[in-house]
Amino acid sequence: MKILKYKHDLDFSYAFGATLTFELLKTKPEIINRVFISNNANKTQGIVEIEELCNKNKVEVIYNDKAFNILSPKDNCFVICEFKKTKEKVDDSNHIVLVNPSNAGNLGTIFRTASGFGFNNIIIVGNAVDYYDPKVVRASMGALFHLNIKKYETIEDYIKEFPDHKRYAFMLRNSKSIHTVTKEEKYSLIFGNEATGLPDNYSDFCEAVIIPHTNNIDSLNLPIASSIAMYEFTRDLYK
Amino acid sequence: MKILKYKHDLDFSYAFGATLTFELLKTKPEIINRVFISNNANKTQGIVEIEELCNKNKVEVIYNDKAFNILSPKDNCFVICEFKKTKEKVDDSNHIVLVNPSNAGNLGTIFRTASGFGFNNIIIVGNAVDYYDPKVVRASMGALFHLNIKKYETIEDYIKEFPDHKRYAFMLRNSKSIHTVTKEEKYSLIFGNEATGLPDNYSDFCEAVIIPHTNNIDSLNLPIASSIAMYEFTRDLYK
Repeated sequence: MKILKYKHDLDFSYAFGATLTFELLKTKPEIINRVFISNNANKTQGIVEIEELCNKNKVEVIYNDKAFNILSPKDNCFVICEFKKTKEKVDDSNHIVLVNPSNAGNLGTIFRTASGFGFNNIIIVGNAVDYYDPKVVRASMGALFHLNIKKYETIEDYIKEFPDHKRYAFMLRNSKSIHTVTKEEKYSLIFGNEATGLPDNYSDFCEAVIIPHTNNIDSLNLPIASSIAMYEFTRDLYK
Repeated sequence: MKILKYKHDLDFSYAFGATLTFELLKTKPEIINRVFISNNANKTQGIVEIEELCNKNKVEVIYNDKAFNILSPKDNCFVICEFKKTKEKVDDSNHIVLVNPSNAGNLGTIFRTASGFGFNNIIIVGNAVDYYDPKVVRASMGALFHLNIKKYETIEDYIKEFPDHKRYAFMLRNSKSIHTVTKEEKYSLIFGNEATGLPDNYSDFCEAVIIPHTNNIDSLNLPIASSIAMYEFTRDLYK
């Protein structure tokens, strides 16, 4: 039984914890390779249900601590699910576009919020944290499993494929307030890196938008700004 | 020269990094005890400016790595500022009330957003992460220094002192949509713990409010939900 530490070039990743494993077993059992249960796991109802679902879906269950020693999730993790990465794809509906996102926890949080506001298509542009990193999977609380995600080398590559989306770039300079900007029907909300934001030239090919706030802070952090934008752009959909 | 690892019962805490140290020197030099600069710090313009501001404000600068070894901030931290905790206080304006917040990064992020939307008074209720923990200070990006913060043992203690604030409790059960709820002029936005949310009985003495979202996720995470609420309640102030 070979267990590999997570790396970008593997064609599978890991979901840590009973909640995520349960979610995968219920909604996407076909992408599961196997489930590891620690010797330290108590026979709680949750564990029994996971065993039953594995049995029903013919998923192999491995009872030992090797995977936990190699993958070293947090202390209170007694279940690990190894699952296949799925093919990159996005459809033509509205997009969240993240340029050079660098923090795994932030990316997972954005996935969770996107799923919460019905943005099922995520674009990642340029150098970025690996979106299958187990830290992203965990922070997304499973939202990752239900999103279409695709990576592009450059913003130009992305625009070439989806030229008709109205592009809103969230940036601080020369920007229109999110309260007054006209919201088109088919669009992309575009956000930059945590530390550096979007390059100034994005306003050449996007509508530059700002979320107005006091001068007491320099900027909102990335998951916060993107979540407020998603909330605002869908405020008529979720009453 | 005695350097103590941060603990709750100390009357001072630490700000890690040049940015936070610079912020404190510019806005609150009177609360600084001393500044540590690592032997590994390059003489960048930022370091020179910090030295000049220390000199101008008669703040002691200590050049050695003892503080860095003891406090072990992240690798890329070459400046540490030791600062005095300030007295707990809040005023009568609108409040953000956090019940049992447990995660330092989340708390700092909420502080930053609160400062961004003009909520300068934060209430913390019950068992909670220490809001002077250096991790909170760091995640707040310095917002902590500009907020009034006060801790209460119970929500009843808080209500006794501010009975006239309209209380909005963000929770999932029996709640009115944030889009339709009537927004009073003087109010408190109340949020529960990351994992458990607010107890059901909060709807007995608060208006229960929900941020509507799809069924694809169980809930928004705490910094996201609180930030959207702050944004929505102040949308007429920041155009």
